Amino acid sequence: MIVALAGGVGAAKFLSGLVKIVNQEDLTIIVNTGDDIELHGLHVSADLDIVVYTLAGIVDDTRGWGIKEDTFHCLSALRDFGAETWFSLGDRDLATHLFRTNLLRKGRSLSEVTSEISRSLGLGVSVLPMTDDKFETRIVTEQGTIHFEEYLVKRGAKDEVFGVKFYGVENARPAPGVIEAIENADLVIVCPSNPIVSIGTILSIRGVRDALRRTKEKKIAVTPIVAGAPIKGPADKLLKGLGLEVSAYSVARLYSDFIDTYILDAVDHAEKDRIERLGLKVRETNTIMATVEDRIRLAKVALGN
Amino acid sequence: MIVALAGGVGAAKFLSGLVKIVNQEDLTIIVNTGDDIELHGLHVSADLDIVVYTLAGIVDDTRGWGIKEDTFHCLSALRDFGAETWFSLGDRDLATHLFRTNLLRKGRSLSEVTSEISRSLGLGVSVLPMTDDKFETRIVTEQGTIHFEEYLVKRGAKDEVFGVKFYGVENARPAPGVIEAIENADLVIVCPSNPIVSIGTILSIRGVRDALRRTKEKKIAVTPIVAGAPIKGPADKLLKGLGLEVSAYSVARLYSDFIDTYILDAVDHAEKDRIERLGLKVRETNTIMATVEDRIRLAKVALGN
Repeated sequence: MIVALAGGVGAAKFLSGLVKIVNQEDLTIIVNTGDDIELHGLHVSADLDIVVYTLAGIVDDTRGWGIKEDTFHCLSALRDFGAETWFSLGDRDLATHLFRTNLLRKGRSLSEVTSEISRSLGLGVSVLPMTDDKFETRIVTEQGTIHFEEYLVKRGAKDEVFGVKFYGVENARPAPGVIEAIENADLVIVCPSNPIVSIGTILSIRGVRDALRRTKEKKIAVTPIVAGAPIKGPADKLLKGLGLEVSAYSVARLYSDFIDTYILDAVDHAEKDRIERLGLKVRETNTIMATVEDRIRLAKVALGN
Repeated sequence: MIVALAGGVGAAKFLSGLVKIVNQEDLTIIVNTGDDIELHGLHVSADLDIVVYTLAGIVDDTRGWGIKEDTFHCLSALRDFGAETWFSLGDRDLATHLFRTNLLRKGRSLSEVTSEISRSLGLGVSVLPMTDDKFETRIVTEQGTIHFEEYLVKRGAKDEVFGVKFYGVENARPAPGVIEAIENADLVIVCPSNPIVSIGTILSIRGVRDALRRTKEKKIAVTPIVAGAPIKGPADKLLKGLGLEVSAYSVARLYSDFIDTYILDAVDHAEKDRIERLGLKVRETNTIMATVEDRIRLAKVALGN
């Protein structure tokens, strides 16, 4: 059994390589829900959908999110009504949010609905939200404390980050199966995702970090930082905002209490010694996933093959 | 001031002629909401949307409902999730339901939201739901007592009708402006709509029928029955189910306590005497609205021009 901790685009790319070399039934993916947001009355689970769409082979590869060849007729009509449409929602994509929201309103849990959506799209992997409870990542900026999607999408990550807050973290319980999956895993993989708002949120859920520390099996992380910058997203701004160095080392240090191995990009060879001094093993490879072959090769390195 | 009582397609066609010869600001349309239904968690107001889309010039003319040249990508994806998709919802059309539902959930009333939607689509007429309260028309069949849209759309009006029930009628208050509009009208027009489930619902709302009886101004009805059959929809089955004759006379009789004039199709000349014996004036004309000119001409007859 393999457990992966995942955010959005980077994790999904990595996982799409991984599922080509392991049985889908042997893989459980625990996904960040701190980016979940209500839009037009619909519950949008940004990272869950990116992971599910990518593994189902229907993601828009160019954008890394949404559904390929989707249309935006509904969003355009919503704009005509004066609704806020800074978050792009395609017509096919909307079906997911409608289906999810309708079931949630009927009392089903996010993990039940996620399971139904991923099975319906043909996935054999188990995709779990980190929590079924309300959890919202907000970014402290000069504009106020705003939802992460507002910071990232609406305002284009242009604001200086003064802090990150996890609303709901006190009451959020791990979704059913999350702790069990970690306890029963033969291998835990931390995907190349934002260490603060994608992985940091998962680690903040009660019992998750403890379960990761407890388990004696192999626990590796794939670096999301290459040559001092994130491959995608605002990880650099968030790390800086929290007073942290923007480097592979910095991420390795955030995870060093529970991982044993760090997969470093070969261009960051200079970081190797520092990371090893954290007590971690280091594997060096090309971590940029430009092609499907790149993804599969990186997955093989993660598996130690 | 003109007040029109309206159901869906027949009323909308008639009104699209009327607005060509009167000032939109002088017209208030009171619309049936007994067909409103929750689908995929969205509040769908079938008749309100048909009227608004038609007057806004964006209705799909072939079907008489929905938005012209709409796509159905979201519905198709919902079907893949196993959702019930017997009620056709286009991608642009969905924006209306999303916008409406979101505002209703935020505590706005159906009449406020309807006003916002119709203004946003450029209408100058005042479109009022008959009530802001929950009201649901159900049809008693061998299959059980089912929602009107289920009877009409899902099951294709194939069931024998044993009765019609108005759920919520005891508590449904007229929407703000409904009674005032009738009281202040110089002319009331009952559009060519189903007398049971479109006009009958409006008349069932507390105070509406009394207000119509009280006012001394001109009150006319346009026949929805031509040559012993409805122009569209299941009015014949519903009339029969209630033990009523399927004829223009039968409809005139249902309205005879409050209207003074009945517009009869010329092919039903034989009905004239019977209707006049109800104490009504009769105007005969061609009531089939095949062309825009037909609609305008019929509207002129209704205005007495």
